[in-house]
Amino acid sequence: MADQYAQTGEDKRPTGIPAIRWEEPPEGPVVVLLDQTRLPAEEVELVCTDAPALVEAIRSLSVRGAPLLGIAGAYGVALAAARGFDVDEAAAALEGARPTAVNLSVGVRRAASAYRSAMAGGGDIGAAATAALAAARALHREDAEASARMAGHGLALLDELLPGGGHRILTHCNTGALVSGGEGTAFAVALQAHRAGRLRRLWVDETRPLLQGARLTAYEAARSGMAYTLLTDNAAGSLFAAGEVDAVLVGADRIAADGSVANKVGSYPLAVLARYHHVPFIVVAPVTTIDPETPDGAAIEVEQRPGYEVTEITAPQAPVTGAGGGLPVAPLGTQAYNPAFDVTPPELVTAIVTEEGVVSPVTAEALAGLGAGSRQVAS
Amino acid sequence: MADQYAQTGEDKRPTGIPAIRWEEPPEGPVVVLLDQTRLPAEEVELVCTDAPALVEAIRSLSVRGAPLLGIAGAYGVALAAARGFDVDEAAAALEGARPTAVNLSVGVRRAASAYRSAMAGGGDIGAAATAALAAARALHREDAEASARMAGHGLALLDELLPGGGHRILTHCNTGALVSGGEGTAFAVALQAHRAGRLRRLWVDETRPLLQGARLTAYEAARSGMAYTLLTDNAAGSLFAAGEVDAVLVGADRIAADGSVANKVGSYPLAVLARYHHVPFIVVAPVTTIDPETPDGAAIEVEQRPGYEVTEITAPQAPVTGAGGGLPVAPLGTQAYNPAFDVTPPELVTAIVTEEGVVSPVTAEALAGLGAGSRQVAS
Repeated sequence: MADQYAQTGEDKRPTGIPAIRWEEPPEGPVVVLLDQTRLPAEEVELVCTDAPALVEAIRSLSVRGAPLLGIAGAYGVALAAARGFDVDEAAAALEGARPTAVNLSVGVRRAASAYRSAMAGGGDIGAAATAALAAARALHREDAEASARMAGHGLALLDELLPGGGHRILTHCNTGALVSGGEGTAFAVALQAHRAGRLRRLWVDETRPLLQGARLTAYEAARSGMAYTLLTDNAAGSLFAAGEVDAVLVGADRIAADGSVANKVGSYPLAVLARYHHVPFIVVAPVTTIDPETPDGAAIEVEQRPGYEVTEITAPQAPVTGAGGGLPVAPLGTQAYNPAFDVTPPELVTAIVTEEGVVSPVTAEALAGLGAGSRQVAS
Repeated sequence: MADQYAQTGEDKRPTGIPAIRWEEPPEGPVVVLLDQTRLPAEEVELVCTDAPALVEAIRSLSVRGAPLLGIAGAYGVALAAARGFDVDEAAAALEGARPTAVNLSVGVRRAASAYRSAMAGGGDIGAAATAALAAARALHREDAEASARMAGHGLALLDELLPGGGHRILTHCNTGALVSGGEGTAFAVALQAHRAGRLRRLWVDETRPLLQGARLTAYEAARSGMAYTLLTDNAAGSLFAAGEVDAVLVGADRIAADGSVANKVGSYPLAVLARYHHVPFIVVAPVTTIDPETPDGAAIEVEQRPGYEVTEITAPQAPVTGAGGGLPVAPLGTQAYNPAFDVTPPELVTAIVTEEGVVSPVTAEALAGLGAGSRQVAS
């Protein structure tokens, strides 16, 4: 049975915004999650004492974001093992919680594989549970390290492109600690600039339809003490025209072999505006995002999401009235065009920042070199 | 005392979507308004039996949109006159309902002036009231005629620019019958194309922050039986990239002497996208929108609106919880950048369509010629 309870209160949280952590109170190990569905109205942590509780948290989007889902899945397996439950059953349930999330599956399998190897090697259940936890922690740590390296490379690139300092950065969607084991991708670069005293302002696109910018990025910026300002996505044009944007930083869902970048819908218009205004458009993503099997932008299939995300507004305190569970803002029966992401061609991307270095200009050759482990650092 | 009551029911309305009408039931004359604050959830008409009721409707934004406010103001004066109230007092109250709305003031003064001239010419109160009503009706009719002429010129331009027919038009904000005595500006052109069987699709930008596209344009498109699809403002980029937009049609708040166009925020990014994708960007506005006193785009002061329009969502059924009366979607204390409009430079505007003809290419000389009454028609 799912066993999950909520806890609130600043004192329970370390500094920063841990989206997930493993704890071992006297009652037994637990996975603690920041409930993202209740942000920014409330900071509530969900304490999961077994894998089904975590499955429920994944299904309800309390925990989300590709890298973070992988870490959650791995911890879920470790939790089942540590609590003496059937690990295969837990792994299957966790993988099935969001079947299309590749990272979730990868994380679950890594921890389950460590568990099985330890058992096959003659270890007892306790030793196998320790191995599963070690695998989850390794994944968590690797992701955090990748974030830190991307942040370092990204800030170095910004300092080089914008020697004046005092960067005014525009970002889109949510790419910080809420989707990562570390501090994220694009947001981590802005945070690094902030810590170095070189962030003048973070412009935060609200990111319709799901408002991840308003709800989550603004929350992370506020928690980090950054100078930030929220705007509707369509107000970015005015900012560019007023010369108020020094660089655009976004994440990526997938990067094709030719350097085409699939990312949250609204990224491509920013790339076109950035080009028109001679402002760098920088993509920050781990090398795992680069997909050599996808040759170019045309090969990226764009997921179309339900229209009610546009015709209704969903927010933590929204009354449930529409068919989609949100507040209706368009006439009943209105059809909506709602692509999940858009594709920015490589010629509009100034640089791709990864944990292994920076690719600029963006070419298939440079990306392939990066995937092979060599480094291309902007010079 | 304000006397205003609501009526619902399809049978009370003629075809089309009259935002305002004058009626003379046995109980005495009334001004009937479609309550725009309740769209699209409910179609409710407000019946105003005196000027204070109309003042209240203007203040509460039940009636809005520059040309429509002028017509409402003129009918308000006619109503006070017909009901035997003090016309000067009514005129002052109507003008003060939204002091910055120039058209409201112009409409009020036109009807009040007709009333006073009739009185000064020795007419009785009845004759003067008739004169005030005639002035209001003339303003209403002129606005409707201007809409019709813009629609005709606009469709001719579309047919010329896009000889294939089957136009797929992207529009932003609300520019139809809800802001006009007729069928509006940009929307009227799309409607004309629809009636001529040459509108393949109307793409409707939702138009954050106030969602006039989702709430009002989608409503008007649905009522008119047009093939329309709603999208978040940031999804327009994907549509352009997919080759799904044949032309962009928008209205204008003000056009500077050099052809710079101030319009609802989000228009400028569409102009940049349109240019990048070689798609015509067309502005439809009456000649009164052209302001020879404003030399260029830099001289247009951009109104900054309250941040709560961005940090909170306001919709007809939204519970009142935030400081701005809407549903909070960002952390408390979040600062927002919220310009009311943006400025598109003339080099990005393919054509300006007015009731007096089409200006293309957009130059100061061509606009000045139009203002002087001569006609420039795209050839």
